[in-house]
Amino acid sequence: MLRVPYNELLDALQRVLLKLGFTPERARLCARLFADANRDGIYSHGLNRFPRFILQIQNGTIDIHAQPQLLAGMGALERWDGKIGPGPLNAFHCMERAIALSRKNGIGCVALANTTHWMRGGNYGWQAADAGFIGICWTNTLPNLPPWGASDPRVGNNPVIIAVPRPAGHVVLDMALSQFSYGALASYRMRGELLPVDGGFDAADRLTRDPAAIEQSKRPLPIGYWKGSGLALMLDLVAAMLSGGRATHQITSDPDREGRLSQVFIALHPSSLGSPEAAARIADEVIAYFQLPPGSKGEQVRYPGEQVLKIRSENLAKGIPVEPSIWEMVQAM
Amino acid sequence: MLRVPYNELLDALQRVLLKLGFTPERARLCARLFADANRDGIYSHGLNRFPRFILQIQNGTIDIHAQPQLLAGMGALERWDGKIGPGPLNAFHCMERAIALSRKNGIGCVALANTTHWMRGGNYGWQAADAGFIGICWTNTLPNLPPWGASDPRVGNNPVIIAVPRPAGHVVLDMALSQFSYGALASYRMRGELLPVDGGFDAADRLTRDPAAIEQSKRPLPIGYWKGSGLALMLDLVAAMLSGGRATHQITSDPDREGRLSQVFIALHPSSLGSPEAAARIADEVIAYFQLPPGSKGEQVRYPGEQVLKIRSENLAKGIPVEPSIWEMVQAM
Repeated sequence: MLRVPYNELLDALQRVLLKLGFTPERARLCARLFADANRDGIYSHGLNRFPRFILQIQNGTIDIHAQPQLLAGMGALERWDGKIGPGPLNAFHCMERAIALSRKNGIGCVALANTTHWMRGGNYGWQAADAGFIGICWTNTLPNLPPWGASDPRVGNNPVIIAVPRPAGHVVLDMALSQFSYGALASYRMRGELLPVDGGFDAADRLTRDPAAIEQSKRPLPIGYWKGSGLALMLDLVAAMLSGGRATHQITSDPDREGRLSQVFIALHPSSLGSPEAAARIADEVIAYFQLPPGSKGEQVRYPGEQVLKIRSENLAKGIPVEPSIWEMVQAM
Repeated sequence: MLRVPYNELLDALQRVLLKLGFTPERARLCARLFADANRDGIYSHGLNRFPRFILQIQNGTIDIHAQPQLLAGMGALERWDGKIGPGPLNAFHCMERAIALSRKNGIGCVALANTTHWMRGGNYGWQAADAGFIGICWTNTLPNLPPWGASDPRVGNNPVIIAVPRPAGHVVLDMALSQFSYGALASYRMRGELLPVDGGFDAADRLTRDPAAIEQSKRPLPIGYWKGSGLALMLDLVAAMLSGGRATHQITSDPDREGRLSQVFIALHPSSLGSPEAAARIADEVIAYFQLPPGSKGEQVRYPGEQVLKIRSENLAKGIPVEPSIWEMVQAM
């Protein structure tokens, strides 16, 4: 993969967004959220998604001028309408708003309707943690996962992010509720590898580690089988009920037009209850125990976000990896 | 199994608690929380846990006279000390408090330190939903689950509950983060059955469906392998940091003395943002789509809590199932 300096990637994306009509401030932030995904090693949701983002602007799924609008609020809970604005900008705004509510009320929650794909969900977790807040957020998606007991997709893989601030390195979980994404299945198939664990059903209704069989059956597994299936349902219910927006079954199954999503952003202010030092000490102790002593067989235990920090520092030093064909396309725009 | 009328079970438990020194009001509520677990079919966390609850009172793990105490608060977020009082009473109190905070602020959150086992976590989800609120709560536990990549228990199975109110029947997810509890493993073993899916590792480090092999290796699986492992860590971190209480690694691994747990209770008031009718309509539509049309192979898809309502109604009509030996013991106390 080609590597380019972070600022070169950022500037190139910003230039394209400006050309498309974004205001300078919004172009900068949106470009940063794409570039940060590549910087942190989440290549599937950074530059590689940029062509579809452009397509969604062109086909009217995303309105680049739309600003999120407050619809209702009560104390620490607010409902916003994303008005099909750019998903990353809407999501960033709503986490900022949850943080502001939390600064005043200890906890803050923003439910967002009619937004578009937020790209890398982890961005909004890091955003909260960088500000010193615990961040919890999730999104619903188009139907891409059969619930346990069914063979057709009726729930989304509804990515959920939980981020905890820690001076020695934030702890940030960013996970979808499918055991493997379609992107991951394709990667295993192209490398000619089996999945490390069962990832779905084959055409004969058997659990399988064969990625191609799952791509064909369109029956990937929710994490924990019936448990992830139930969790996906709950996250969709809460997002749609709080935002007043669409639930998964109302979202088009055409990924090029996936829009009008519902999302929830929660921020918690641990330092409003005790000293930041005490919270940091707890986090450090929990992480130390999680990782040590090394297992009897020398296994390595990684905490969520640990790998991101390593990759970030490597990519900032050596240049940010970009897919050459997409990088060329962006430069030519 | 023997069946007894609900009120007979309730009265018997209450009588024992009064004899142990509970005040009448607290004896009644505590007895109800145990009886409700049996009423709803969660036999593992109702009457069957009562002997250990009594033991924990006798060995000083639980202080029956302790009342939870407010330590710090900021707007919609509060920190309480459970003072090793009875876990079910502490948890019920804190969900009530989260609901009260939510009634005023849209959302409310209570973090509870130094509490004891809450028994059936689903009780506090139903409590919120019965009051018309979305309820989210979780607890940490003693270390009973190896994180992904390790072979010794370093995280808890940290049960999490998400409850959504719905006039046609609340939707309530109540799940631990292990794929199978030790109780479930024992049940499969005693019936001579294999698990329906992989449940852990055997002594040779292979994933297995043999319940006895997992009981022996003490290596049950987190849901979704590395994903549930990360989620368990995050829930422990947030609970300990917000409550200022103990994290899993500080909790004794002796189940007879498991105490000083940390818990989080969140209530959300969907009707503070829109009409209750609109929220109920969304919930009904989501559930209808989740269950229908029946899959091409006639599969049955159940939503979380559906089975509880069926069992509850059957048990209230026919009598509540109780384990005869424990029922006899309680009656003799």
